[in-house]
Amino acid sequence: MSIPRAAYPAPFNTTRASHAVLTVRDLGQSRAFYVDTMGFVVSDETADTIYLRGLEEACHHSLVLKRATAEPVCERIGLRVYTEDDLDKAKSHFERAGLPVKRVNVPHQGTTLHVADAVGTPLELCATMATQPRMVVQFQVFKGPCPHRLDHFQIITPEVQRASEFYAGMGFRLSEYIAVDGTDDLVFVFLQRKGNPHDIVFAGGPGPRLHHVAFTVPDAQHIIHACDIAGSHGFGTNLEHGPARHGPGHALFAYFRDPDGHRIELFNTHYQMMDIENEPVRWNLSYMRNRPWGLPPRARWFKEASPFAGVASREPPHPGAPFTLEKFLAECP
Amino acid sequence: MSIPRAAYPAPFNTTRASHAVLTVRDLGQSRAFYVDTMGFVVSDETADTIYLRGLEEACHHSLVLKRATAEPVCERIGLRVYTEDDLDKAKSHFERAGLPVKRVNVPHQGTTLHVADAVGTPLELCATMATQPRMVVQFQVFKGPCPHRLDHFQIITPEVQRASEFYAGMGFRLSEYIAVDGTDDLVFVFLQRKGNPHDIVFAGGPGPRLHHVAFTVPDAQHIIHACDIAGSHGFGTNLEHGPARHGPGHALFAYFRDPDGHRIELFNTHYQMMDIENEPVRWNLSYMRNRPWGLPPRARWFKEASPFAGVASREPPHPGAPFTLEKFLAECP
Amino acid sequence: MSIPRAAYPAPFNTTRASHAVLTVRDLGQSRAFYVDTMGFVVSDETADTIYLRGLEEACHHSLVLKRATAEPVCERIGLRVYTEDDLDKAKSHFERAGLPVKRVNVPHQGTTLHVADAVGTPLELCATMATQPRMVVQFQVFKGPCPHRLDHFQIITPEVQRASEFYAGMGFRLSEYIAVDGTDDLVFVFLQRKGNPHDIVFAGGPGPRLHHVAFTVPDAQHIIHACDIAGSHGFGTNLEHGPARHGPGHALFAYFRDPDGHRIELFNTHYQMMDIENEPVRWNLSYMRNRPWGLPPRARWFKEASPFAGVASREPPHPGAPFTLEKFLAECP
Amino acid sequence: MSIPRAAYPAPFNTTRASHAVLTVRDLGQSRAFYVDTMGFVVSDETADTIYLRGLEEACHHSLVLKRATAEPVCERIGLRVYTEDDLDKAKSHFERAGLPVKRVNVPHQGTTLHVADAVGTPLELCATMATQPRMVVQFQVFKGPCPHRLDHFQIITPEVQRASEFYAGMGFRLSEYIAVDGTDDLVFVFLQRKGNPHDIVFAGGPGPRLHHVAFTVPDAQHIIHACDIAGSHGFGTNLEHGPARHGPGHALFAYFRDPDGHRIELFNTHYQMMDIENEPVRWNLSYMRNRPWGLPPRARWFKEASPFAGVASREPPHPGAPFTLEKFLAECP
Repeated sequence: MSIPRAAYPAPFNTTRASHAVLTVRDLGQSRAFYVDTMGFVVSDETADTIYLRGLEEACHHSLVLKRATAEPVCERIGLRVYTEDDLDKAKSHFERAGLPVKRVNVPHQGTTLHVADAVGTPLELCATMATQPRMVVQFQVFKGPCPHRLDHFQIITPEVQRASEFYAGMGFRLSEYIAVDGTDDLVFVFLQRKGNPHDIVFAGGPGPRLHHVAFTVPDAQHIIHACDIAGSHGFGTNLEHGPARHGPGHALFAYFRDPDGHRIELFNTHYQMMDIENEPVRWNLSYMRNRPWGLPPRARWFKEASPFAGVASREPPHPGAPFTLEKFLAECP
Repeated sequence: MSIPRAAYPAPFNTTRASHAVLTVRDLGQSRAFYVDTMGFVVSDETADTIYLRGLEEACHHSLVLKRATAEPVCERIGLRVYTEDDLDKAKSHFERAGLPVKRVNVPHQGTTLHVADAVGTPLELCATMATQPRMVVQFQVFKGPCPHRLDHFQIITPEVQRASEFYAGMGFRLSEYIAVDGTDDLVFVFLQRKGNPHDIVFAGGPGPRLHHVAFTVPDAQHIIHACDIAGSHGFGTNLEHGPARHGPGHALFAYFRDPDGHRIELFNTHYQMMDIENEPVRWNLSYMRNRPWGLPPRARWFKEASPFAGVASREPPHPGAPFTLEKFLAECP
Repeated sequence: MSIPRAAYPAPFNTTRASHAVLTVRDLGQSRAFYVDTMGFVVSDETADTIYLRGLEEACHHSLVLKRATAEPVCERIGLRVYTEDDLDKAKSHFERAGLPVKRVNVPHQGTTLHVADAVGTPLELCATMATQPRMVVQFQVFKGPCPHRLDHFQIITPEVQRASEFYAGMGFRLSEYIAVDGTDDLVFVFLQRKGNPHDIVFAGGPGPRLHHVAFTVPDAQHIIHACDIAGSHGFGTNLEHGPARHGPGHALFAYFRDPDGHRIELFNTHYQMMDIENEPVRWNLSYMRNRPWGLPPRARWFKEASPFAGVASREPPHPGAPFTLEKFLAECP
Repeated sequence: MSIPRAAYPAPFNTTRASHAVLTVRDLGQSRAFYVDTMGFVVSDETADTIYLRGLEEACHHSLVLKRATAEPVCERIGLRVYTEDDLDKAKSHFERAGLPVKRVNVPHQGTTLHVADAVGTPLELCATMATQPRMVVQFQVFKGPCPHRLDHFQIITPEVQRASEFYAGMGFRLSEYIAVDGTDDLVFVFLQRKGNPHDIVFAGGPGPRLHHVAFTVPDAQHIIHACDIAGSHGFGTNLEHGPARHGPGHALFAYFRDPDGHRIELFNTHYQMMDIENEPVRWNLSYMRNRPWGLPPRARWFKEASPFAGVASREPPHPGAPFTLEKFLAECP
């Protein structure tokens, strides 16, 4: 196996990670978590759906919550392409890869394509959305950790290599990756289009499943405040991991589970990655036992994830053996 | 048993927690930790001793590190009284309590008394110290988390009630305490003289032993930076607990073990407690299972502590059963 | 003239600056400023009065706003003493000084004394107040800059020396002062009882008038946020000076005028001052031309202040010549 | 006149603002300012030149300081293009516009083009640079405000419309602009390629001259710390404007003059601007009298700027009448 390189020029211009569509059982609970506690802005709300965006976002939504009675799932993750023409090229590109594409109408979005990527992740691509006022300096609406914008998705898949190659073929660049020591076996890849470390991350495991959606916060102290306000609003135990700092990717972070178990990451401290000479940063898997500081994630951070609607999860050929908090405590009492 | 009330007027005027004297095996390692990483200011340094202070402190030292080859210990914790006259009154007070007092000469300190408190904690009292320039706005010497001043000590003792009564008799006020649910059995007491929640804290367990010395940092982000800079300087695993927020006491904190295993707490967010009508805040022991957010401390945070020089540790009548991270993970996988 | 030294023991135990009583023309506007924008907590509210406190305060009020149709004034500034017995001693102390004392009933306060100090500042002393829950970790009520507690008052008076001597006689310690270069002519004195740099500050000029009431905020970033949220709520031009850093006192600060022109300071970064060996820090008046960074205050910061109810303002023998922003710009175009 | 629209597709792929080359009279003084105080990382240093980069930058330099005895100037501002092929296309593009291009060798840079833009700004374009380790989590080298990366340039020119059209022709998008009320007369344009509000900004006035180079800092508190550390290092009066918040662009900022009078901006709080539907934000010139909070800039902030090496400054047809601090104080005493 080898480290995939981004197609250049890209077959079509994907600009950034755009939005996620999640189903939830109780919109009231979701609102209490996302709006009242985490500080997302409500762009629109119907009997069945809440459309949320971050404080700096001019796009209509980066998080769509739909009421559903079944097990909560992620319906789709959304990517933005630059123009309608890029949508057409995307359609051709996917179809050439044998991936059927459906043109659909989605409220508040321009022409939208539905397609599953090479490892089965249900995608939604559009070139435009309805716009909303940026709230970036509307301090009177700032609440809690003040999420500013969606940054990236993390997907669990048994086929990290395949996913990497597929997205590299779409023009995504690898900014960092984790490989099994002494090999190029990819276990974790950070792929990006927008010029910072990630738009979409694939990690090895049963999938495809959505591990988390990540949103930026402005300052380090907002990560702390996320925890404090979660505690004050009765969501203290929803904090699953952190506050701590990643090794790969470098970000300061906190992971929360929403009332339906969907996981979000709040983070800051990403870097710019725009120059052609920047080679992806390699990390050996063994490094994950040696984080700069802080406890490793609990086993459930590795195991649990949101299913994608109607997509069966497949097991990887070899089960992983992540370095969990439980293992760490057994080793270092 | 009952909740002790502060003697008023106090038999002598203790003003604040002052300093700790610790022995260490390698002053170079201690310097790497306390000075280069944590950002303490060196007031003086000899072949055998480093005198440290926080950035705002005008007193000569709040932390004294002495080289020793034996097991690292805390020699003494120091309290300040206001005047020489208060020292005389203190001497009488301790002697009336059957506690022998020794007048000693200690470098950089005025007249100093050595005495053990009612539960065996070796104390050092003085009314004056040599002064040093406050570095509170000498930003060119700011480093790492920028510890500003010593705030309090936590002592583990099998006799929390006795300690509380003894310090109440010295005029210390109880700001908060943890008691066994439905009883007044004290398991954790915050005692103070200086008008914030604590100068000295006693927690139940084998002792007397020094659990930690706590230093203030200015902003929430300095707690994060303490972890980051510790990681960068190879002290990442010295972070033992946090960053997280206390229930009782309310502070945002991070606990580090120094290279000899002595524990320090960095924290901010204390409140003022100066008014006579303020009753101590009671917490039930069961609350400790319900912290606002964050994982409970590892078992070793409860078990391990610095011995006091030449003081045998006694076991409590009933071993405690603290709610540890290990228990939490067993209960909530 | 000479630098006054604190009476020890104090004739009675003043513990801290407590509260201010201001009149305002429009309680709705005051609420929009103090509650909705600045984040004060409402303890109580009647048709004519709003009682406010900071987030960490357990006392009923630190700021009382009373509706009045006349020119807005400060009715009184409040000091806390420790016990009812201290109130009695205070009464005797003031009366010995020829200052008539009135025992009055004030809502939510214990026995209260009304008296004017030696330079005419109308004081209100009490030993107890009704208590309220501390909101110090009730993050769900945190708003704007999150003022935590009242810290000090600044009074303008033509008699700085006299004020200093009077408060020193009450046991207040001088922590810092500004004197005319080469003399001991006091132009600015920081006096304190609670162990940080100030409870009451006197500055030379026509008075007695209230220059400002100061409240603490937790972190440096709350000073910035105060400005941002003021801007968002239409109070941007109420920012009169800062954000910047003081030379004397060292604090990071921002000064705002409330809708009635009363001035408040938000600040952090004070230091502890509790040891007998700490001599007051002297600054020469000429230093004020050499602040560490930032522009000097506008002329109106020096000139304008709140009158005290029913107290005539007297001119100083020599008008001051403060180094204003206007002068600075004329000198350094 | 009309608001120019970005050429799409761009004639060549400019990715971002890259670097500035400034001459200085005393490299020791420059080092004291940029390295010891502001915290830039030294990538390389010769007898005549210091190469600096921000903490997250993997490119060799974003700021080049060259010793010179003549009046300090900006030699060139640098832009990055994506590939060598883009360089070729750039050459053709400029030559078609009648702008002569020189291929030059520049240390630590790949093939480099020298060319002046349509309003005379001397540019330097390259597709690659030598790489250096990113210091983004090397906290042991963090100093002062911790500048993370170069973000944008501001150029003063008498031909804002012409500059806008020229850069729009290069594929730059207008994110915000200020126009004379009731007209489309551009007085201030924010142009960008990298997906945040600015890579290059043009403001009306005598030029072309370099108004400032802007660098990002991670958190709001780093803006404050920049001022504090500047004060501690004797550069307090180098702070020229701020800390305050921009109206257009929204950023929290502080402007400093370096020892040679070159101006840098430290800021945070930019937003993402990547979607085709985002229309540029229009501000009326009159708005500049109504900033959200804080004092307007001093007259010299508007007037003074670094000349470009060997480029004569031309006057605009109508002198501007910026709303200066001096005017503000005259109007609002």
